[in-house]
Amino acid sequence: MGRRRALLAAGAVLAAGAGAAAVELAQDDQDADRATAGAPPADAAIPFHGARQAGVTAFQQPATHLLSFDLPRTSAAADRKTLRGVLAALTRTLATAASDAPRDPRLQGGGATRLTSLVGIGPALAARLRLDVPAVLAPLPSFPGDRLDPRRSDGDLLVQLCAADRWTLTVVAELVAAAAHAAGAAPRWTQSGFLPHTAPGTTPRNLFGSKDGTANPDRTAAERWVWGPAGAHRHGTVLVYRRIRMDVAGFAALPEGRRDLVMGRRARDGAPLSGTAEHDEPDIYAKNPDGSYVIPATAHVRLASPRFDGGARMLRRSYSYDDGPTDRGLLFCAFMRDPAQFTRVQNRLAARDALNPFLQHRASAVAYVLPGAAPDGTLGEQLWT
Amino acid sequence: MGRRRALLAAGAVLAAGAGAAAVELAQDDQDADRATAGAPPADAAIPFHGARQAGVTAFQQPATHLLSFDLPRTSAAADRKTLRGVLAALTRTLATAASDAPRDPRLQGGGATRLTSLVGIGPALAARLRLDVPAVLAPLPSFPGDRLDPRRSDGDLLVQLCAADRWTLTVVAELVAAAAHAAGAAPRWTQSGFLPHTAPGTTPRNLFGSKDGTANPDRTAAERWVWGPAGAHRHGTVLVYRRIRMDVAGFAALPEGRRDLVMGRRARDGAPLSGTAEHDEPDIYAKNPDGSYVIPATAHVRLASPRFDGGARMLRRSYSYDDGPTDRGLLFCAFMRDPAQFTRVQNRLAARDALNPFLQHRASAVAYVLPGAAPDGTLGEQLWT
Ligand code: HEM
Ligand code: HEM
Repeated sequence: MGRRRALLAAGAVLAAGAGAAAVELAQDDQDADRATAGAPPADAAIPFHGARQAGVTAFQQPATHLLSFDLPRTSAAADRKTLRGVLAALTRTLATAASDAPRDPRLQGGGATRLTSLVGIGPALAARLRLDVPAVLAPLPSFPGDRLDPRRSDGDLLVQLCAADRWTLTVVAELVAAAAHAAGAAPRWTQSGFLPHTAPGTTPRNLFGSKDGTANPDRTAAERWVWGPAGAHRHGTVLVYRRIRMDVAGFAALPEGRRDLVMGRRARDGAPLSGTAEHDEPDIYAKNPDGSYVIPATAHVRLASPRFDGGARMLRRSYSYDDGPTDRGLLFCAFMRDPAQFTRVQNRLAARDALNPFLQHRASAVAYVLPGAAPDGTLGEQLWT
Repeated sequence: MGRRRALLAAGAVLAAGAGAAAVELAQDDQDADRATAGAPPADAAIPFHGARQAGVTAFQQPATHLLSFDLPRTSAAADRKTLRGVLAALTRTLATAASDAPRDPRLQGGGATRLTSLVGIGPALAARLRLDVPAVLAPLPSFPGDRLDPRRSDGDLLVQLCAADRWTLTVVAELVAAAAHAAGAAPRWTQSGFLPHTAPGTTPRNLFGSKDGTANPDRTAAERWVWGPAGAHRHGTVLVYRRIRMDVAGFAALPEGRRDLVMGRRARDGAPLSGTAEHDEPDIYAKNPDGSYVIPATAHVRLASPRFDGGARMLRRSYSYDDGPTDRGLLFCAFMRDPAQFTRVQNRLAARDALNPFLQHRASAVAYVLPGAAPDGTLGEQLWT
């Protein structure tokens, strides 16, 4: 069964109430040992409906656009009603835009839009409206070196769109903003990003020239560390977003050997310094004849290693951004069950990552990524208990 | 002979001094009745060298990035030397980036970059350094309704990059900016834009949902109205750039029939109101039974019609831009032998185009687009007489 039919079937089964079966179907659909699906045929729509939102599970598309919204602050009861309306409007808008027959003529005639999306709830809103979200959902602490712009950070609702091209995102962002506005949400910030087009199954590079996303969790690890916890949130996850400005020229000015020591991986092929192929597991204990570590003590991949963290892994699906000659970098997007996974790693990185001289964290957001919607359902049905 | 080999051959012949033959080759290469070439195979590099710059002649790619630079103002002699250095640096950088083997690893491994580019000279620089440019090159007059931002307008040198995706443009823009900086040019502004991916031979839509570029000149008309004049500038042209903010929501709020009357064409299929198919010539004299014009007196395509202008046509290769929820629109890019062609049309449009309530011209630039470079040549050799 192809991806498309599997997920449609998944949606149908879910709608019929057989949640567990639907999940199996949605997961069979994924590549054997990857947490996300392979690339679908170039002109196929990627189904909106399913146990989990396609903005996390589908093949990582080359263009992204994030939109953050705030809800008005009146009474909790009124705001809960507004939130319900916004989620219903977003569900309708995103499902239609992702379908094989999008209503907007600007999305027709160029093959399918390949749109995928996810909708998430910010921790402040969840607390204020006492929504049923995972107990771990909380704002991030501040980290040494943070230079966050509040006008580009946080928000009550986060929508991430991904598609084959920027055109689709601009048009869909307009539809999403209009739908959210009509339902009572106010725009907070938007941000666009992109990846190099890469052959399916290969890892895209970031602006430093490194392959970025190599050490992502496999399916088994993702069930444990990315999705859940079990119960109502089994098909939810938490997105941590960081807008990280990169000093591309400064990093490029280092000799290639130095750059590889900073990362702990070779830019050329992505292999860890302790290995020979991209997907070799970095061996942080490997030593040189002189007793020093092969992957240096301050190398990025050592400090980010799951070995310091009981094996915890996050699913990174980052994008590059280019907001002008002096503002380029990475939209770090990582999915995990518990945002404390991010906090632990970022505390180690902020303290001594050799990359730090070339990075500035300029914005930040956290959101609970809702479980997917069944064909006759609405995103966020789990929130109201 | 394929496009690639034809243009390589053209370059070789040009290098050997047989300019006229090279031109014929470069032109045979174009589709029979279009001023620009058809889409090359997806993974083929588009040759940088040729009689004319590929940024005008090649198939219009879905992503663009413009960079404007200023030169320091010292003595004319010193500034001429700086300009020579900048043009040599840009030629090298752009030729390498466009080649099958770009040096930057970030441009490798994703197939060819599909980069095309053009380099142009602003009228103020040309006057100041007494460069040999077409006599018609001059700044545009100001038009009623203009709200131009000088920090996003004009410039001594203009580089337009086009490619299959934004990633390529971001990386190449960085290389171009570094090369220009090292040679003594200062960045003035940059702007990125994009198109929907459309099947080859079909016309891309703009954010109002209209097909944009339908009535472009054929090859014969382009030789007369776009390229030239004859002599040293035969393979040059003038680019008029306007950054036009569009009130997308306001226009979309009109009923479909009204929108089509504003344009003079049907958004659905792009056909003129006087015709049935996209490529029917608009008949501005056609009348309704009640004596009114089928294409109304204030319709955009009537006011822009070459019939009011002795048949003069410009080659429009516009892109959409999206610089945030309240700043979206069109990067109007049109190539013509004489910028007065633009001025005449824009004077008519500014006076009474029915589109005006939905448009704001926010930036503007004019540049003499240099003839192409031979494989051992440098852009701008014609400037020094
Ligand atoms: C602009 C900033 C960053 C850049 C350029 C960057 C780049 C990279 C690269 C090239 C790798 C190796 C390849 C891979 O496994 O994907 C990597 C690994 C990793 N990075 Fe980052 N990263 C950045 C920021 C962060 C941040 C803020 C975090 C989390 C706090 C993080 C967490 C990780 C993790 C967990 C790994 C995998 C380590 C492993 O399992 O071997 N990175 N990063
Ligand atoms: C955002 C602003 C604009 C929009 C949305 C727009 C849109 C269009 C559309 C949809 C067409 C019909 C299809 C086609 O032939 O491409 C058209 C035609 C044309 N436009 Fe515009 N246009 C804009 C601004 C301008 C400006 C500033 C000029 C020049 C001053 C211009 C000159 C023309 C010309 C020459 C034609 C072809 C007329 C003919 O030969 O039938 N346009 N435009």
